[in-house]
Formats: sequence, structure tokens, C-alpha cells
Amino acid sequence: MKSAIFAGTFDPVTNGHVDLIRRALRLVDRLTVAVAARPEKKVLFSQEERVLMIREAVPDEPRLTVEPFTGLLVQYAEARGIGTIIRGLRFVSDFEYEFQMALMNRRLSGAIETLFLMPSEDYTFVNSSLVKEIARHGGDVSPFVPEGARSRLIAALGGKR
Amino acid sequence: MKSAIFAGTFDPVTNGHVDLIRRALRLVDRLTVAVAARPEKKVLFSQEERVLMIREAVPDEPRLTVEPFTGLLVQYAEARGIGTIIRGLRFVSDFEYEFQMALMNRRLSGAIETLFLMPSEDYTFVNSSLVKEIARHGGDVSPFVPEGARSRLIAALGGKR
Amino acid sequence: MKSAIFAGTFDPVTNGHVDLIRRALRLVDRLTVAVAARPEKKVLFSQEERVLMIREAVPDEPRLTVEPFTGLLVQYAEARGIGTIIRGLRFVSDFEYEFQMALMNRRLSGAIETLFLMPSEDYTFVNSSLVKEIARHGGDVSPFVPEGARSRLIAALGGKR
Amino acid sequence: MKSAIFAGTFDPVTNGHVDLIRRALRLVDRLTVAVAARPEKKVLFSQEERVLMIREAVPDEPRLTVEPFTGLLVQYAEARGIGTIIRGLRFVSDFEYEFQMALMNRRLSGAIETLFLMPSEDYTFVNSSLVKEIARHGGDVSPFVPEGARSRLIAALGGKR
Amino acid sequence: MKSAIFAGTFDPVTNGHVDLIRRALRLVDRLTVAVAARPEKKVLFSQEERVLMIREAVPDEPRLTVEPFTGLLVQYAEARGIGTIIRGLRFVSDFEYEFQMALMNRRLSGAIETLFLMPSEDYTFVNSSLVKEIARHGGDVSPFVPEGARSRLIAALGGKR
Amino acid sequence: MKSAIFAGTFDPVTNGHVDLIRRALRLVDRLTVAVAARPEKKVLFSQEERVLMIREAVPDEPRLTVEPFTGLLVQYAEARGIGTIIRGLRFVSDFEYEFQMALMNRRLSGAIETLFLMPSEDYTFVNSSLVKEIARHGGDVSPFVPEGARSRLIAALGGKR
Repeated sequence: MKSAIFAGTFDPVTNGHVDLIRRALRLVDRLTVAVAARPEKKVLFSQEERVLMIREAVPDEPRLTVEPFTGLLVQYAEARGIGTIIRGLRFVSDFEYEFQMALMNRRLSGAIETLFLMPSEDYTFVNSSLVKEIARHGGDVSPFVPEGARSRLIAALGGKR
Repeated sequence: MKSAIFAGTFDPVTNGHVDLIRRALRLVDRLTVAVAARPEKKVLFSQEERVLMIREAVPDEPRLTVEPFTGLLVQYAEARGIGTIIRGLRFVSDFEYEFQMALMNRRLSGAIETLFLMPSEDYTFVNSSLVKEIARHGGDVSPFVPEGARSRLIAALGGKR
Repeated sequence: MKSAIFAGTFDPVTNGHVDLIRRALRLVDRLTVAVAARPEKKVLFSQEERVLMIREAVPDEPRLTVEPFTGLLVQYAEARGIGTIIRGLRFVSDFEYEFQMALMNRRLSGAIETLFLMPSEDYTFVNSSLVKEIARHGGDVSPFVPEGARSRLIAALGGKR
Repeated sequence: MKSAIFAGTFDPVTNGHVDLIRRALRLVDRLTVAVAARPEKKVLFSQEERVLMIREAVPDEPRLTVEPFTGLLVQYAEARGIGTIIRGLRFVSDFEYEFQMALMNRRLSGAIETLFLMPSEDYTFVNSSLVKEIARHGGDVSPFVPEGARSRLIAALGGKR
Repeated sequence: MKSAIFAGTFDPVTNGHVDLIRRALRLVDRLTVAVAARPEKKVLFSQEERVLMIREAVPDEPRLTVEPFTGLLVQYAEARGIGTIIRGLRFVSDFEYEFQMALMNRRLSGAIETLFLMPSEDYTFVNSSLVKEIARHGGDVSPFVPEGARSRLIAALGGKR
Repeated sequence: MKSAIFAGTFDPVTNGHVDLIRRALRLVDRLTVAVAARPEKKVLFSQEERVLMIREAVPDEPRLTVEPFTGLLVQYAEARGIGTIIRGLRFVSDFEYEFQMALMNRRLSGAIETLFLMPSEDYTFVNSSLVKEIARHGGDVSPFVPEGARSRLIAALGGKR
């Protein structure tokens, strides 16, 4: 497998995302992390900041590209000429949503295959929404996100320094 | 079984809904498709348009009635004198929500029974929200919705003609 | 809906099964309860006893037929000329197995439709295996099974009279 | 177990919540019901009303404290010196969310243990959102909520008296 | 909470079981671990060995009793005068089975309450069947079971020393 | 990704397995299908027959190796020097079992990564046990298994020719 895309909102990137990116890099020659615009969702960080936080969290990795995207993921993958989408699976609820998306994407583009990876069990319970709620109330998010995400969460939401 | 109600938001109707309507028509003498008002949810199409799209998708079927409704489904069913509600089941997450609603409806009206049907496996992954997202980004929704819904999605959201 | 089949092993029939049979009888003109042979499973009661226990539990119902069957359910349904199979749904694990069976049966016979009903919440937790385990240890199974099943369980397994 | 916290939004308290509170009171010496502020969610009742409705529903119980809280539940529990959080479990979807929260809370405070209880099967299908929807359309909510919650729902939303 | 029962087959005890026993001991004054006979299941270790392995794994804990039991758990709990059963929850499939058992036990004895605890995420994937399969093929089970269980597995099944 | 293993019992291989093998071959340079011995399970076909049926079903594919294995999958993978295991995911119940196995395998060998693929929705409901049950009762299994598996099922179990 030469190339794959790992897509998400990453608002902000968590240690669970970083774990999945590192696992994916062991499987493929080149990985593109695609950061969704999400104009319809209320995000805390701009798309540029979300791209930047991932780059900071996985530095010095020439095989990794992190870039913003808008529109449908299959269109983006086709435009990049990449046929593999990598997704993380942690929970049954993840699974059903991902199942729906993967079948839909196959129908939209027969050339796209979706692969699922599991993060380490240390990160199954970490998600961006809970992390923001903890930061909002001054809780310590350092076990859950990379340092750059932690400092930006404090700058944006206040909390323990 | 003489009569049954198949209720939903249908924003817009999909091929999965049409599949379930046709299956239900094989089981009952008369089927009423009840299109919910949903004032509390942001819908793309007016209740009238949503009714119209279903009528267009299943034309020339004298045993089918499509009409708008507001309020609680059990009240509507009782007012129509219909004791059977038909629902589609595709996923575990569907299942748990439907289970809750069916037990609640039984408690509200002991005369109401809820029946569940499965759509064809060709449509398990199709839902109105994903279809709108695809249309919004100019993707081709023709494999997922009837022609009338497709042209209205393009008119409302733009996209490939 | 004129006729339907409700199939199972019924080793023994429980109050949950009886609840579903009564619900089904409100929906269809004639209901056939088909009791599977299960030569491959270790059953406690013979197929004849299992048929008899259901007849005793729902007596004086001319619209109900209870009979043994062997082989595939779809073949049995086709031989009887009945196009509808009714199944009970209680749990997510039920749901996934039933989903598989219903899609398989559709593929084996396009004329067969599967309907799902929910038992009363009073019986969601009752199943034949747990009931046998309780009877085996002398527990009181009278809240869970009809009287005829209870006395046969005691005769077969011993326990409180 | 001396003390425990049962936390939630309670918008409004339901008979399912009351059932869980009574079960918890049989297990612990003192129970604190902590009513979340939820500034980020649109609630129907103020935090004060939600506290009051619980107090009215379980009166004359000196071992029960009902009070408002803001911030993270683990911080609140630590400030009160209470190491046990009690949660209700009814559905698979509950389960996965609760699993995530409990593991997160353990990571935030190693001293916190989460216990899960099941409400009576009479209340598995009752939740505050469905109850509000029923009241909004004039349905009878008296089987689902305590009297004080029922009269406040009518005052707030209208409906059958 | 003065006393509780933690019941299971423990064939053999795993680190996940030990984690749950230690968590339970922080919540209750006295804990009884009840080891089921399971004459109907093929177990690797005798009931006596299974009791012994748990005692060895949690030594020097005067508040812990480990003993064999036969029959129904609710009968055993009633005979001991203990009203609380503690169970571990790890997966959705656990959850549904446990839900059924807990509701059944409530029906059999209104005085019995079931509490659920979660093991550490380090042990969610550990279960006795997988551990036996690994030992059978000479794999290293030392990360999954206490030392006494490991040496008995090797003695019984062979494998790496 | 250079090499990967797709393991299973394949008693017999189904069209769902063949679909996954073909998808895997688009992702990796070389694929090894490892057919488990399963001495502890009652299988219909010998390990040799199961290997043969897969070879017949995917002929003329030099990048595919099909071979028998005994013991633990991680040991086999390490002995072959292959670090990637591919598994199919169709259902929530699959998902939880696979999750457990993948975490266990990671603990047994840090070098092993498990990837999950979804079969086509045409095959989500096909499994070897149902196929054998259909063949046993003379049902037509040709939509579910390759021709070689079909003729061997008829030879072994009888049924429609």
C-alpha cells in the first residue's frame, strides 16, 4: 500500500489520533492527514490551527502530509489519486457510523477502499469533545492531547497552566 | 392487517424509504405515510414538498395515502383509527431508539402495535442526512434517492445536473 | 395480512413467546406456530411436547395452528403458501442474528418477508435457557412460563412443586 | 459504602431517575444528587427548578442531598470528598458513553470509582427528551414523571391538565 | 454497603478478575467471591483449584472470602444474607447478558441488587477462554493471569516455562 | 504494505471470504490466507479440503498463498515474518470479538497490527454455519459460495444438484 488518507475534524488532535497516525505510517509509504473544514459544525479551532497542531504533534516525518480539505472525502481522495481511506474504530457506535460511510463511499467511488485500525486501549476513551469540556472547566488535559494542543486549549478556553 | 402507518421526516425521501413503502404495501391493504412537521428540527424541505416527493416516488398506488401530520404519532394513529405503526430497522442504533419509542407508544396507547421491517441490503447505508451532505458538495445522489428528490436537492443545494 | 408463521424451538414455551403469539394474532387472520425439530441441538423436550405446551398455553384460539416442522423455514413457508415470517426482537444480539437470517431468507425466497415484533418489557429478560437453569436448581419458574411448561419442567428436572 | 453521587441534568426528573435514587439509597448511607448546570445545552427548566423537582419527588429522606453543581463531576466529587459515582444503565448506547466517561474520570482522578445500576424494566424506555416531546403535544406524561414534574411540564409547555 | 458477592467461573482467574476484586474491596466492608460449580460446562480446573487460585492471587485480605457454590446465585446470596451482587462489564455483549441476568435475579428475589463495575482498560480484552487457548499453544500468559494461575495452566496444558 | 495474512476456519469458504481476499489483494503485494486447524471445533471439511476450496475459488493469482496453520495466529505471523493481519468486519458482534483478539495479539506481539476490511453489502449476511444449514436441508447455496464449495457441500451433506 503506497498511499492512504486519514481524515477527520481534529478539533483538537488527541493522543488517540497521534497513535493512529503512527500506526498508519508503519503500514503505508505516504500518509495524508486531511483536516475537514466543517463549516456546518461549531469548531473551536480554525482549520489552519487544526492542521498546525497535527504537524507539531508528528514532526520530522517526511512521509506525512497534513492539509485542509473541503467537500466530500471521496472527491478529495480521487483528486489526490489515493484509493485508501484509513479510519479509527473504538466503539460499537463508531462502527455503525463508519460502516454506513464506508459503504456510501464505495458506492460514490468504486475505487475507494476503507481500512479500519484500532488505537491503543490507552486511548479508546479519549475524544475531542470530552477533552474540550475538561479544558473548559480547568481540568488537566495533558494525559489526552499533545503539548501544542494543550497550550492552545488553555489559550482558547482558559484553565490550569 | 387492513391498515398501517409508516411515519418519518423524509427530508428528503430516499430509495430506502421507497423500498420499505413497497414492502409494507405487500403486507397491508392500505398504507398511510405520515410526514412529520418537525418544527423543532432544521429541515431542508417544507412539509408540503416532503409529502409531494413521496407521492411522486410511488405514483399510481390507490392503496397509498401520503399526508402531513403534527403532534404525537400515537394521537395521529388513534385519530385515524389505525392500530399498526410500521418502522424500518437497519442498525443497532436504530434498534435501540425504535425500541424506546415503541414501548413509549404502547404505554401511551395500549391499542398501538409497532412492526419492524428491514429494507433491502442495498439501502441499509442510505440516510437523508448523508444524501444532503453529498448533494451539498456536488456529489451524484441519483443512486440513493428518487428522481424527484434528486432534482429538488439540486435546486435547493446546487450541484451536478 | 392474512397468514403468518411464528417459528422457534420453544424448549419450553415462555410467557414471552405467549405474549408475542397474542400480539401476532391481533395483526393476522391466521397464525401458524412452527416448532423446529432441532436434531443438532440438545433439547429438553421432544418436538411433540413442545407443540403440546404451546397449544395448552393458548387454548381455544381457532385462528392458531401449532405444528412441528423440519428443514429450512423458507421451504416450510413456501410449502404452506405463507409469505410472512414473524420474529420477536428483544436485544441487540437478537437483532443482528435476525437481520442475518432475514436477509438470507429473502435471498432464498424473494417472496418471504420478515416482520419483527417486540414483546412486553415484562418479558424482555425471559428466555428458555435461563428458565431451564432456574428449574434445574429448584427455583420458581412460575413467573416466566405457562402452567403446563412449569409442571413439565418440574417433571423433567425436579424442583419445587 | 458510605457516600455516593448520582449526577445528571434531570430536565425534568423522571420516574426512572427516582427508581435509581431509591435503589442507590438502599446501597449507601448518604446519597448526593448533583444537578448539572449545562450552560451549553438548551434546558427547559432552570437548575433551581430541576433541584426542586427532585427534592419534591423523594421527600422526607434525611440521607439524601440534592444540590446544583457546575464544572467537572470529578472535581465536584473530590471537593465533596466522595469517591463513588453512581450511574444508570439502560441501553447499549448508554453503556458506551458511560464507559468512556468512567475511564476518563478514572484518569482524571484515580480515587473515583463509577458504579452502574439498572432501573426497573418499567422505566428503561423513559427519558427526559421523550417526556418533553409528549408534554409539548398535550400527551399525558403522568405514567413517566413524578407529580411535581408533570405540573411544571404543563405550566411550561401547555397540555392536558 | 457492608457485604457483596462477586460470582463467576474463574477457569482460571485472570488479572481482570483480580482488578475487579480489588476495586470491589474498596467499596464494601466484606466481599465474598463465589466460584460456580458449572457441572454443565467443560472446565479445565476443578472447583477447588479455582477457589485456591483466587485465594493465592489476593492473599492477606481478611475482608475477602472465597468459596465454592452450586445452584442459583440468588439462592446462594439469600442463604448468605447478602443483598448485593457485583459484576464486571467490559463489552456490549457482556452488557446484554448481564442485563438479562440482573432483571431475572430481581424477579427471583426482590431483595437482590446488581452493581456493575468496569475493570481497568488494561484488562478489557482479557478473558479466561482466550488465556487457555494461548497457554494451549505455548504462548506466554504471564501478562494476563496471576502467577499461580500461570503455573497451573502450564501444568495442565503444557507450554513455555 | 508488502505482505499480510488473512486467517480463518473457512468451513467452507464463502463468497464473502472471496470478496475480502480480492479486496486485500488490491491493498497488499502478497497475501497469505491461513486456514486454521481447529481441532477443538467440529468442522465439516478437513484442513486440506478447506485450503483446496480457497485455491480453487481464487485461481491464477500468483500473489496469493493459501496454507494450513496450527497454533496461535501471532506465532504463525512472526514465523512468516509478516506483521499485518487482515480481518473482515460485518456486525457489531464481530466487532467486539475482533477488538478483543486484536488487543490480545498486540500484547502477545507488539509488531503485529490488525487491519479491518468490510465485505460488500451483498455478503454481510453470508456465513459458513448458515450455508451448511441450508445445504443440509437441500437448499440452494449457489448464491453464497464458490462452485467448488457448493459441490463439496452437496457431496458431504446431500442436497439439490
